[in-house]
Amino acid sequence: MGIITLLTDFGTRDHYVASMKGVIYCKAPRATVVDITHEISAHNIIEAAFVLRHSIVWYPTGTVHVAVVDPGVGSSRRILVGRYDGQIVLAPDNGLLSIVHRDLQLDELYVVEQERYFLPHVSGTFHGRDIFAPVAAHLATGLRLSMLGGRVGEPNVLPLASPKQSGDEIRGCVLYIDRFGNLITNIGASMIANELRRGESLVVYVGEKNVGPIRNSYGDVGQGELLALIGSSGTVEISVNTGRASDFLCVDVQPEVIVR
Amino acid sequence: MGIITLLTDFGTRDHYVASMKGVIYCKAPRATVVDITHEISAHNIIEAAFVLRHSIVWYPTGTVHVAVVDPGVGSSRRILVGRYDGQIVLAPDNGLLSIVHRDLQLDELYVVEQERYFLPHVSGTFHGRDIFAPVAAHLATGLRLSMLGGRVGEPNVLPLASPKQSGDEIRGCVLYIDRFGNLITNIGASMIANELRRGESLVVYVGEKNVGPIRNSYGDVGQGELLALIGSSGTVEISVNTGRASDFLCVDVQPEVIVR
Amino acid sequence: MGIITLLTDFGTRDHYVASMKGVIYCKAPRATVVDITHEISAHNIIEAAFVLRHSIVWYPTGTVHVAVVDPGVGSSRRILVGRYDGQIVLAPDNGLLSIVHRDLQLDELYVVEQERYFLPHVSGTFHGRDIFAPVAAHLATGLRLSMLGGRVGEPNVLPLASPKQSGDEIRGCVLYIDRFGNLITNIGASMIANELRRGESLVVYVGEKNVGPIRNSYGDVGQGELLALIGSSGTVEISVNTGRASDFLCVDVQPEVIVR
Repeated sequence: MGIITLLTDFGTRDHYVASMKGVIYCKAPRATVVDITHEISAHNIIEAAFVLRHSIVWYPTGTVHVAVVDPGVGSSRRILVGRYDGQIVLAPDNGLLSIVHRDLQLDELYVVEQERYFLPHVSGTFHGRDIFAPVAAHLATGLRLSMLGGRVGEPNVLPLASPKQSGDEIRGCVLYIDRFGNLITNIGASMIANELRRGESLVVYVGEKNVGPIRNSYGDVGQGELLALIGSSGTVEISVNTGRASDFLCVDVQPEVIVR
Repeated sequence: MGIITLLTDFGTRDHYVASMKGVIYCKAPRATVVDITHEISAHNIIEAAFVLRHSIVWYPTGTVHVAVVDPGVGSSRRILVGRYDGQIVLAPDNGLLSIVHRDLQLDELYVVEQERYFLPHVSGTFHGRDIFAPVAAHLATGLRLSMLGGRVGEPNVLPLASPKQSGDEIRGCVLYIDRFGNLITNIGASMIANELRRGESLVVYVGEKNVGPIRNSYGDVGQGELLALIGSSGTVEISVNTGRASDFLCVDVQPEVIVR
Repeated sequence: MGIITLLTDFGTRDHYVASMKGVIYCKAPRATVVDITHEISAHNIIEAAFVLRHSIVWYPTGTVHVAVVDPGVGSSRRILVGRYDGQIVLAPDNGLLSIVHRDLQLDELYVVEQERYFLPHVSGTFHGRDIFAPVAAHLATGLRLSMLGGRVGEPNVLPLASPKQSGDEIRGCVLYIDRFGNLITNIGASMIANELRRGESLVVYVGEKNVGPIRNSYGDVGQGELLALIGSSGTVEISVNTGRASDFLCVDVQPEVIVR
């Protein structure tokens, strides 16, 4: 019996997440249900896309990941189920799969349309409970993805900013700010791997601000000081040792990050 | 081995919920423990009563639901255990069962008084850990409800506002505002089922404000526009497409909702 | 297959906790993973130490408790694994074990240094995922603590204020303020057990404010009134019946609490 993870913008105050879990346990009483998060900002698809991509890669092959940030619920937007690097992902086709689709290997992808796997009555506003939860329970008990509907080639993807290399400079941007105020950029460690291996001196800038070379850990600078390092997501991150880089830098627009 | 759900106003910051889970696992190590929510406003019995009613109906028969919003802990208030439509519910007798009792079928109801199922030492302030948790663990491992104490007829219930029909008007009120700012009313879909089936044109008002007919989903109006629909709880709801009806309408008192 | 609990300051918004759980399930797919809390204030070791001590004592013997509040991640700070009163605790050696170490019986304690139990690549910023999670999974599946590294005598402990007795007075302080605004002090019930048993009249002061004798439960005073009682953590607590003592007393510095 498999693992089912849930990622939503439902919060944990209302009865919505609990309803989804109840529906899952009715059909898959021995499933292990894991909360990725329910604190995605309401309707924020790109935030959900980031957290989804960086969570699912750590799970056992065959885990069923349910992502519901779904402002178009009840409209004609499709629901998709895909297998990426062995992880099964169920999500509305609204861009939520963008980063997973860019970074992971797609094995197979289908539209979810076979109503026999839904609840008997499907509401116009809560497909999380009425479609996603029962379909996930079926998948966790062994249903093949291809039973859910027709094969499709690609999900809808949102335009994602890519870092630009020119001369000795890479220009990227901040993708995500975490609870600790760390600024997670889109500049992957692989883009500067050679320089790091050769011990070349790189310098990181956030806007005009020089935050120094790439460090190994927070303690490499004094408490309250800014630093750059390769974060746990595998990209350049800007942090403050036991502080909040996001406060320090007054980040209120998406700042540009430059590595030279 | 059964499922035990927890609904409290304890929050998730302190050690209280974790203590309850520890006590449960000591007696029922293979139980599946599910959080309904711990974010009920402190001491808010009616909010808990609403979330409890709309969560438990989705769970497998025989699930044990523990609800602890209990400002009278340590006083002479009773603790009750009931079976409603096959769901086992354990709660203080302070009105928390009001909405469950109104909407679900009562099968059996008892006072919880057999101390042999409690922790050996019962504190004056934390019955969640000392009484509710061990009793729930016993129930999840098969204890019959009748072993816990004497039979009673009815729980204490709070006065609940009912919608009033007069002529072609139904007047109700907002019961609950969810995380998305949706206003969930007490006007059940069944009260207007005939009109909806016949395609009659209903108009919904919040106070003086006309929010139009009953729609099917958020996307039936433009982004940022108000609408009414039958929400996932089976009652009339007021929403804003990808926005917050609660902000839009400056709801700071319980508004009246009218369907004509 | 055992229980693994998690206590962190990671919050539940980002992908960090979910990544740890994924790593655990890869190695221990049938473990029961329980969240103690992830809402410890960022980098607040003493708050974590308090919640850890008051949570773990309620769990079945052999439970693996993972505590990661770790501002020194990536520095030379050690990671320890200890067995206290039968509970297995895994934590950075930064003072997080201070209150557990003071109050529980230490059975055995080791440095965690055998890299074969870590993830193959250990980042400089997220040992929760790369070291703590896989080590916890190994412990939950039966790994002996002594396999993880060399034996050590004691963890690093933070200076903890002790209540002082002089004449008929005990002077202590507020250790922790919970979600309900209750002030949890460091004055243990055992320090005043004789007086309580003999029914002697004790009077409790917060700073200059007389909050009366030790009560049995909140309902012993009127709604909105201050009281003192022996809280569920086994120490003197200051509360307001259905209110918040922390607001009532404008506690913004650590107040002194006196029992006479």
